[in-house]
Amino acid sequence: MVSLLRGSVFPSRYAKPFRGNVFAVNPNHSKIMGLKCFPSVLGIANEIDLAVIAVPASLVPKVLRECGEKKIPAAVIVSAGFAEVGERQLQEEVKGIALQYGISVLGPNTVGLIVPGVFNASFALSVPKPGNVAFISQSGALADSVIDWALEELFPFRAIVGLGNKVLLDESHFINHFADDPGTKVIALYLEGVTDGRRFLDALSHASRKGKAVLVLKGGSGKKGAKAVATHTASLAGNEAVFAGALKQGGAIRVFSLEELFDTAKALSMLPKLGKNSIAIITNGGGAGVLCADACEKLGVNVVELKPSTIAKLEPFMGKAWSRGNPVDLVGDALPEKYAKALEVLLSQEHIGGAIVIQTLQTMTKPLEDARIVINAAKKSKKPIACVFMGGVYTRESIRLLHENGIPNYNDPVKAAGALAALAKYCKTKL
Amino acid sequence: MVSLLRGSVFPSRYAKPFRGNVFAVNPNHSKIMGLKCFPSVLGIANEIDLAVIAVPASLVPKVLRECGEKKIPAAVIVSAGFAEVGERQLQEEVKGIALQYGISVLGPNTVGLIVPGVFNASFALSVPKPGNVAFISQSGALADSVIDWALEELFPFRAIVGLGNKVLLDESHFINHFADDPGTKVIALYLEGVTDGRRFLDALSHASRKGKAVLVLKGGSGKKGAKAVATHTASLAGNEAVFAGALKQGGAIRVFSLEELFDTAKALSMLPKLGKNSIAIITNGGGAGVLCADACEKLGVNVVELKPSTIAKLEPFMGKAWSRGNPVDLVGDALPEKYAKALEVLLSQEHIGGAIVIQTLQTMTKPLEDARIVINAAKKSKKPIACVFMGGVYTRESIRLLHENGIPNYNDPVKAAGALAALAKYCKTKL
Repeated sequence: MVSLLRGSVFPSRYAKPFRGNVFAVNPNHSKIMGLKCFPSVLGIANEIDLAVIAVPASLVPKVLRECGEKKIPAAVIVSAGFAEVGERQLQEEVKGIALQYGISVLGPNTVGLIVPGVFNASFALSVPKPGNVAFISQSGALADSVIDWALEELFPFRAIVGLGNKVLLDESHFINHFADDPGTKVIALYLEGVTDGRRFLDALSHASRKGKAVLVLKGGSGKKGAKAVATHTASLAGNEAVFAGALKQGGAIRVFSLEELFDTAKALSMLPKLGKNSIAIITNGGGAGVLCADACEKLGVNVVELKPSTIAKLEPFMGKAWSRGNPVDLVGDALPEKYAKALEVLLSQEHIGGAIVIQTLQTMTKPLEDARIVINAAKKSKKPIACVFMGGVYTRESIRLLHENGIPNYNDPVKAAGALAALAKYCKTKL
Repeated sequence: MVSLLRGSVFPSRYAKPFRGNVFAVNPNHSKIMGLKCFPSVLGIANEIDLAVIAVPASLVPKVLRECGEKKIPAAVIVSAGFAEVGERQLQEEVKGIALQYGISVLGPNTVGLIVPGVFNASFALSVPKPGNVAFISQSGALADSVIDWALEELFPFRAIVGLGNKVLLDESHFINHFADDPGTKVIALYLEGVTDGRRFLDALSHASRKGKAVLVLKGGSGKKGAKAVATHTASLAGNEAVFAGALKQGGAIRVFSLEELFDTAKALSMLPKLGKNSIAIITNGGGAGVLCADACEKLGVNVVELKPSTIAKLEPFMGKAWSRGNPVDLVGDALPEKYAKALEVLLSQEHIGGAIVIQTLQTMTKPLEDARIVINAAKKSKKPIACVFMGGVYTRESIRLLHENGIPNYNDPVKAAGALAALAKYCKTKL
């Protein structure tokens, strides 16, 4: 997966060569990156599916018109220098050409579009691994930073879309697109303003009907932020109450930080349905279990009372010091087998809908084995399991293993509670 | 820095050999870890400052009595099997012996005590680097996980204390101790219950008078959590409203997750005073600036209006597209020099009390150079600077550099806003 725009073959761990033809167009060069250069798209004999335009803003109308004459159906205009710096007339001209020739234009002023494992029409620094979360961002810089973070966390994406100035394609088009895309489970958005409130609400409702989770982080919810939005993407941040109402009506989930956006996306993209709002907290650290239970209660996630019959099933192998209640405290010396047996009993109970597995790091703790236990339990059960493998250096590999196997991990018990609260909301499980 | 309790010489990046004498005591061995073994402390000729007791619970009274006869002033009782499993009588016996001989006892059922760079009387997995944050935890497992996380984040500690069952030494003793310790700036606590409300309040007030920041994460604030507290450390979680009132009266800052505890500790331990509640947000990504401004407004941190004279000073080198407002958007192609000049101008303005520097990761971004710019600016100014270097793989080294130089970094603009809000609260800057 190579980004032509970066001027060099960029290595990516999740790279796979683009199988289609790529043509370079530049009147001043005969070759770019080993590709023969055409002076104009009009000189290319083959049919073209997508044009990526990265010329100075003033040349964009000419180039886009040539794309129209060549009957290219779609274009990503990376070039900046339009409405975001006050050049509204130039942007209107671009819009006119796009409409005249029926070109689906993304941008201008966009970081571009990545579909990991398929193609990379962006100047982002790297490419994440393929997954089922589509991230649509009105800020290219955020998208770029998120990709780098995703590589470290092994967070997978269906697509990354920089909306840019939204001359034609906007959030609603992409929400509708990913709602209909079988490869997408979660649609995560960073928005500063909405092009058309009615279409946005329709798109949200469409996605909701299609069973997709839509998460929205809105920039400009305060006065200072709204003012900054105007200079950033020349958007109107709009009325906060109206926006909040629209999200609610459209069945979308509102979040308030990037971290919350992806913590929630991780849960909703990876976890199966939460059938019952009644979870078990399994921990080898009492304090971590307490903090998790506090957060669950605050967020409406039910840390269910264990039935006497369940306690009786656990008793034989839990040792003297266990809590005999939920949170299920396995106590600090818990070996992987204890986690395994506790998970097996608890997930098989009809009155328990899911689990949070906490692993604090103690002398006897075996992070990699514990991770394998959880992965195994998740394979056998249809109930959601979120993990909190705490620590840093010693737990890094076990967290990678969990994520590679589709188990979301959080570094704080409070966040796992938040993830299950969001899952309950998405599954319409009564909170 | 070796933990005798782990049975082996444990390597640590922040290890430094303990300079005092260490004596091993065990009637069944002649040597432990190369040390000559004494059958009892009574057989040691030298004076002893501290006994670390890790024998089965039933033997603790005998061993502690011998320590008393040997006139050892302090003991860490690592052994478990006391009140936390219902053995209250045994615990009372230990307390009686401690009082009778005047031994300052930490524990029983504690992970122990670490003073990084000085000594390690714990069975924690590793040792963080030395710093000015004292972490006092009623959960050993949390302390252990936090240490591992700290190693990854390079977070430094003055001390890590596991309170255990608090037979004698409790949170109030340690708050008072670290309040008087010139090497401590922040006292961070995880508590499940308080031994004596009056003494706790007095200790908080003492720390406040001494200018120390006290941060408190309380387990058992909800019903389920409070119930779990009873089985975890046999504490009474107490009345939530009374506890909240005591913290307020004592000038402590309440937090609600481990992450918030250390995000806040990072700011308060590293940053200079915030004199004026009026900050500048400097960013190369508009969206990140918007999210930060939104969070600041929500938390009462003033994103100050720039004076026309300040804008005029910035104008010459900021290029065409900059925001001409606060957040100060340097635009995506910002090179390190632009960060340097903007920081220099903004920090020199009388109406600006501090800064949040955001770096999104774009094609032109130079994370390491940007980090050096911030470090340099912080050295020249007395105003606090918090950073948000976003990303993962490509920013890891720059974040290490920031932390090594005492600049707190956060992975999300919203968290930096939270950090400055806490700093304002601590500095009693009007919010």
